[in-house]
Amino acid sequence: MLSKAQIQHIKSLEHKKFRQEFGEFIVEGRKIITELINAPGPFRIKNLYLEEGFPGPAVDHPAEYISAKEMERISSQSTPSGALAVVEIPKVPVTMPQQGKLYLALDGVRDPGNFGTILRLADWFDIAAVYASPDCVELYNPKTIQSTMGAILRVPVHYTPLAPLLQGCSLPVTGSVLLGGTDINNTPLPCEGIIVFGNESQGISRELLEHIPVRLYIPSYRRGSESLNVATAAAIICAAFRRNRPPLPMQPDI
Amino acid sequence: MLSKAQIQHIKSLEHKKFRQEFGEFIVEGRKIITELINAPGPFRIKNLYLEEGFPGPAVDHPAEYISAKEMERISSQSTPSGALAVVEIPKVPVTMPQQGKLYLALDGVRDPGNFGTILRLADWFDIAAVYASPDCVELYNPKTIQSTMGAILRVPVHYTPLAPLLQGCSLPVTGSVLLGGTDINNTPLPCEGIIVFGNESQGISRELLEHIPVRLYIPSYRRGSESLNVATAAAIICAAFRRNRPPLPMQPDI
Repeated sequence: MLSKAQIQHIKSLEHKKFRQEFGEFIVEGRKIITELINAPGPFRIKNLYLEEGFPGPAVDHPAEYISAKEMERISSQSTPSGALAVVEIPKVPVTMPQQGKLYLALDGVRDPGNFGTILRLADWFDIAAVYASPDCVELYNPKTIQSTMGAILRVPVHYTPLAPLLQGCSLPVTGSVLLGGTDINNTPLPCEGIIVFGNESQGISRELLEHIPVRLYIPSYRRGSESLNVATAAAIICAAFRRNRPPLPMQPDI
Repeated sequence: MLSKAQIQHIKSLEHKKFRQEFGEFIVEGRKIITELINAPGPFRIKNLYLEEGFPGPAVDHPAEYISAKEMERISSQSTPSGALAVVEIPKVPVTMPQQGKLYLALDGVRDPGNFGTILRLADWFDIAAVYASPDCVELYNPKTIQSTMGAILRVPVHYTPLAPLLQGCSLPVTGSVLLGGTDINNTPLPCEGIIVFGNESQGISRELLEHIPVRLYIPSYRRGSESLNVATAAAIICAAFRRNRPPLPMQPDI
């Protein structure tokens, strides 16, 4: 049975302030927790809570079994999945871009759904790491974690000022812009380097644009249409960068 | 000044039940309301509420001026934009796909953010209309409206059972699948027809797949990566369908 203090502690981790104070965050869901136990990467589970009678993760791990009512109290989801882990926020040193690999840099992406969706894309398109400006939404926000669909376990995210990163980068640097660039369909795209995406309403900041020699836009086909959402722009651009690389062989239908 | 009954009526429109009962929905935001007045299409504004001292829409329209406090009470946004319209739900007859045009069909897309993002994409890529299965999320959900960013005014949406639509369609029918299709990068894509996207977790229903002769998948480049979100898959696929069509000339930076 959970104590009042335990419940309070877990609930407090819904807020950035307490995540930073305690160095912990919440992961919910049977599938992602199974993956987390199997391939923890830099992540260490501190406490695992499983709902009694609910299918737990598909692997063994010490856990505390709690009632459905208790799970409802600690979960931030409207329909709790029956598995919740308190995970330590790892301290991962920022690594520099390496030759032959592709990276994304996010300049002030504020929406947790967009940030998480971009991580999920990054996983799909074999992006080696994502660099995020310090004013991006926090990775450990529960909504970000949920929209990554597990990609958080496979794509390293480094919060770091982007201008020095781009300035010191010897690999090709490209950026996604709405105006004043070249058409993505008519531009040769490198198979390595950094692709920069900007804030939802402001785009890439003026200061950063100086360090982006190749600016790409996605052409529109209807007069009067609004800009694309940053996550959908990232999808189209990542797919274009990978188009000429042989994909993985199709996995069999399981 | 708003009466209690007016406030109650407007607030009730946050719920599907009352939207259907009254045949009305809410549009919020200065930009989209300006567009709505300028090019109403099938939409008719019933009441327009503007916050006193706030910049209203950029065109003239009869409006009721209300206080910031009143706006806060009727708005469903955490930061009200100062302009809110009650709009009649139009009765638009379902039109059949026409030669030379491209359409999307959504099979059970449940998330309002995904649905709205796909409409925004449809606008960008000059999709003539979107067909939605009756179990899709409702177009007039405030979250859907908000994520369309005005595309709702330009892209007709028809709720209709998809199997008869596809069966009776003489244009090419393609669908986005996760497994068992052909690589989108190695498949010749028509410039007309219907592209089908499925539900967030189930994909396209088995019943509907029978009517989709060409099934496309977006290749993945990393082992173990999760599926793509339906809106990002739609982005990649729409961009691929339009790749060979000349885009609009770039608009000047205003």
